[in-house]
Amino acid sequence: MTQKTEVNAAGRTVPAEINGKPAVPFKGVDKHQPDGRKVGPPLPRCADYPPSGDKRVGSIRAALERCGLKDGMCIGTHHHFRNGDLVANAVMDAAAELGVKGLTWAPSASFPCHAPNVRHLESGLLDHIEGSMNGPLGAFCSAGKMRGMGVLRSHGGRFQAIQDGDLHIDVAVLAAPTADWFGDANGVQGPSACGPLGFGLADSLYADRVIVVTDHLVPFPCVPWEIQGNNVDYVVEMERVGDPAKIVSGTTEITKSPDRHLLAEYVARFVAAAGIMKEGFSFQAGAGGTALAFAIYLKELMQEAGVKARFIRGGSTKYLVEMLEEGLTDYILDGQTFDLAGVASMRDNPAHVPTSPFTSYNFHSKGNFASMVDATVLGATEVDVNFNANVVTHSDGVLLHGIGGWQNCLYSGCTILAVPSFRDRIPVIVDEVTTLCGPGELIDVVATERGIAINPRREDLIAATAGSGLPIKPIEQIKAEVEAMVGGPPDRPELGDKIVAAIKWVDGTVIDGVRQSLEL
Amino acid sequence: MTQKTEVNAAGRTVPAEINGKPAVPFKGVDKHQPDGRKVGPPLPRCADYPPSGDKRVGSIRAALERCGLKDGMCIGTHHHFRNGDLVANAVMDAAAELGVKGLTWAPSASFPCHAPNVRHLESGLLDHIEGSMNGPLGAFCSAGKMRGMGVLRSHGGRFQAIQDGDLHIDVAVLAAPTADWFGDANGVQGPSACGPLGFGLADSLYADRVIVVTDHLVPFPCVPWEIQGNNVDYVVEMERVGDPAKIVSGTTEITKSPDRHLLAEYVARFVAAAGIMKEGFSFQAGAGGTALAFAIYLKELMQEAGVKARFIRGGSTKYLVEMLEEGLTDYILDGQTFDLAGVASMRDNPAHVPTSPFTSYNFHSKGNFASMVDATVLGATEVDVNFNANVVTHSDGVLLHGIGGWQNCLYSGCTILAVPSFRDRIPVIVDEVTTLCGPGELIDVVATERGIAINPRREDLIAATAGSGLPIKPIEQIKAEVEAMVGGPPDRPELGDKIVAAIKWVDGTVIDGVRQSLEL
Repeated sequence: MTQKTEVNAAGRTVPAEINGKPAVPFKGVDKHQPDGRKVGPPLPRCADYPPSGDKRVGSIRAALERCGLKDGMCIGTHHHFRNGDLVANAVMDAAAELGVKGLTWAPSASFPCHAPNVRHLESGLLDHIEGSMNGPLGAFCSAGKMRGMGVLRSHGGRFQAIQDGDLHIDVAVLAAPTADWFGDANGVQGPSACGPLGFGLADSLYADRVIVVTDHLVPFPCVPWEIQGNNVDYVVEMERVGDPAKIVSGTTEITKSPDRHLLAEYVARFVAAAGIMKEGFSFQAGAGGTALAFAIYLKELMQEAGVKARFIRGGSTKYLVEMLEEGLTDYILDGQTFDLAGVASMRDNPAHVPTSPFTSYNFHSKGNFASMVDATVLGATEVDVNFNANVVTHSDGVLLHGIGGWQNCLYSGCTILAVPSFRDRIPVIVDEVTTLCGPGELIDVVATERGIAINPRREDLIAATAGSGLPIKPIEQIKAEVEAMVGGPPDRPELGDKIVAAIKWVDGTVIDGVRQSLEL
Repeated sequence: MTQKTEVNAAGRTVPAEINGKPAVPFKGVDKHQPDGRKVGPPLPRCADYPPSGDKRVGSIRAALERCGLKDGMCIGTHHHFRNGDLVANAVMDAAAELGVKGLTWAPSASFPCHAPNVRHLESGLLDHIEGSMNGPLGAFCSAGKMRGMGVLRSHGGRFQAIQDGDLHIDVAVLAAPTADWFGDANGVQGPSACGPLGFGLADSLYADRVIVVTDHLVPFPCVPWEIQGNNVDYVVEMERVGDPAKIVSGTTEITKSPDRHLLAEYVARFVAAAGIMKEGFSFQAGAGGTALAFAIYLKELMQEAGVKARFIRGGSTKYLVEMLEEGLTDYILDGQTFDLAGVASMRDNPAHVPTSPFTSYNFHSKGNFASMVDATVLGATEVDVNFNANVVTHSDGVLLHGIGGWQNCLYSGCTILAVPSFRDRIPVIVDEVTTLCGPGELIDVVATERGIAINPRREDLIAATAGSGLPIKPIEQIKAEVEAMVGGPPDRPELGDKIVAAIKWVDGTVIDGVRQSLEL
């Protein structure tokens, strides 16, 4: 069957339908006007729940049965346990035992530990995945083997899609490091502590049915309750919901690469030179090696200048926690904690505040935190000369990463992509990105170890950093230097016509399609 | 015009229509099955809000104008400032300046300080009030002078009605002791600190437009954010939002009446004798003089028995805070704080947890906290021999009190009405309550200073407390003793045919109507 496609405002050919439902093509940044109202889940009533509050059932399978799981339904899960998750696979195995078919799995992200679900994709238990696909799941999708079309969304886009009714979750299964029998749950206590549980928030609010799964049950009330029992149908106890060593790192590693350190230093100096690093400012840096190194360089510059931030956005690590404890910021606003120091800080320090994709990233909201962040340092797999960027495929076109909060963060006051100029001798700056994830007009700076390119739209940044001594260059020049060094631009990947996955923009429109790889 | 009425399952004649919309008569406890889904507010988008997050406008009037306030709309407000509220009156005055007519005002409760709104009811600015009416507002409604029909709901019923779409809030105006320019707000900081802000939660989640009004603006982020800026359209600064001395008491007064002390002691001894007061139990007691005295007697019994509670429900006072600090309970779960000690404890002690009508009382939810409370001590204006009770009118039939959380709390494991046997020589126990607010089948015990009556349905309580030495008597006997003393039952009030207000049950059905008083 030929897929219906259309060309969107970014010039990309995108599917006109996704899994049988019409799709709205990307119309340009801030152009799409949603209509209608947020969805409401079915009206429950207390009379149908135990007055004692005890909602425990004996197994995930029993809970799925009571939720009325049937063919074609959608199951939502969160990824706060990262590569240590033991729940999502158990859910799919239980669904397989029930003999249902054609499910959609909507994880907030998937990890290598979820590779066993390839067999459920093969068997037909799962029709498709709406969420990040990497490793074996990405290869399966990229090879064109998935029955339905994959859908990749940002963290904010997932909240938006669930809230708007674009993505209907029939049954949410929320892994919880600590919960009570009523379904109140948090992520900061218990042997599988992971930090916040915000990635499960939309599921808890909007799914028809909600199951909480825990290995650390406490008497009501579980305090704090980040997931509210009032939204929960059933509670299941498992012996272990996650592998603590894989949920959070014991310690966080900073990059050892001299090139990455140079890049991180350039970015920190750029933020200072641009006048962003001033009293009461804010920034976001992830947990990648370069981003961590950036935070450490920036910390030094802040100490030298005597500047304190109002808030730092996590994902947090011990380095951000140290900045909080040393008085270099009033708050950490944090969607996920990457190490044990982050978890402990969120548990014990009221100034280390859990956030969710609702507060931070949802674009169909009355504002969100992302646009209030003064500077955000992000990565990318590819950037083109128009500052458009890719985070889901490399130049081989194979799905390898999720979008995460990346698209949402582009709304920051100064969005800096800190990228190596090449990886495995493949240049990162290209003529046109293989997959468009972020429009260039939202990307202010592309920083590499061989130079910093400022988007020509940001005349203010160009003016502010002139004379800073930083190696500021046109993006085309950096590209040419790298190509001269590695022997030219990357080969174009061999891709088929079939669109195997859609890339959603933060407003639910389709910004690009991922085509089948013919190289797998 | 003749009002259409019908007789509900409690035998009460109730309006078939309320302000032009069909009403569902009470069908019996747990009998009404809601259909449909929770409502969703209109889909906003970040592109329509300032990227800086700064949503400030110059005045309440300007904010109301930008919200598009027009004739016939409904304005929601909360009552956390109690009799010290300066915001609701300012809102109505601003609406009057805009020249609109026929508004509905839906406060979570009203207080004597809101008396100036009588003139707005007279002028036609306000068509009617959906919320508690007491003092001059109650007299105005009871006299049949309000254009539309009043609607009284419990705290949980108000959340249910807003969530279910029975009560649509066009514009919510939320007074906030502390807020940032994005609209994040809390009640524990600032000169007008009031404790939690849970009574404004439904408005913030479901209203089309939301305005936060504060006299203590902090830079983003306002932490904690009990009201989330992501739901807020505009922020207004006022010089003073409340009168601190009237928002919370500096100190809380326990009753000095020997009769009330005897009653409180009976109730505490009853809870112990019935076996409810055991390790890990829970109870709720309000801030009335008798309830406070009960908590103090119970504390002594707990100390003697070496028993610790798992949680105590507020409204909190320094007496409950002392129990928390002395280790007599793990948690206080608290919907409102009645004194400064309560506010400080909620601000500083993570075990003093703010709750909302959603967590505590909403009946159209997957359970709520009310049914998990082992014993709840409440008041009443009248109780009848079938244990039915009234809290909104006295025997003169004039609206004097709101329902508060009273109806919701009836779902407790053991609901005890602690009432004086007479007030101003008028007996409290009657043949039939003037206004039915709570069905007798949910009321387990009626305790007075001259004896304790156990509902015959609760054979377990009768058995457990036999031989306790407490003055346990049939309710008819207590009634007869009081009538012999005061000279007979109270006179029936002189009431007209016109129903001036509807009393909703927790599920949104109409449990009774309040008739016009012909004595005013």
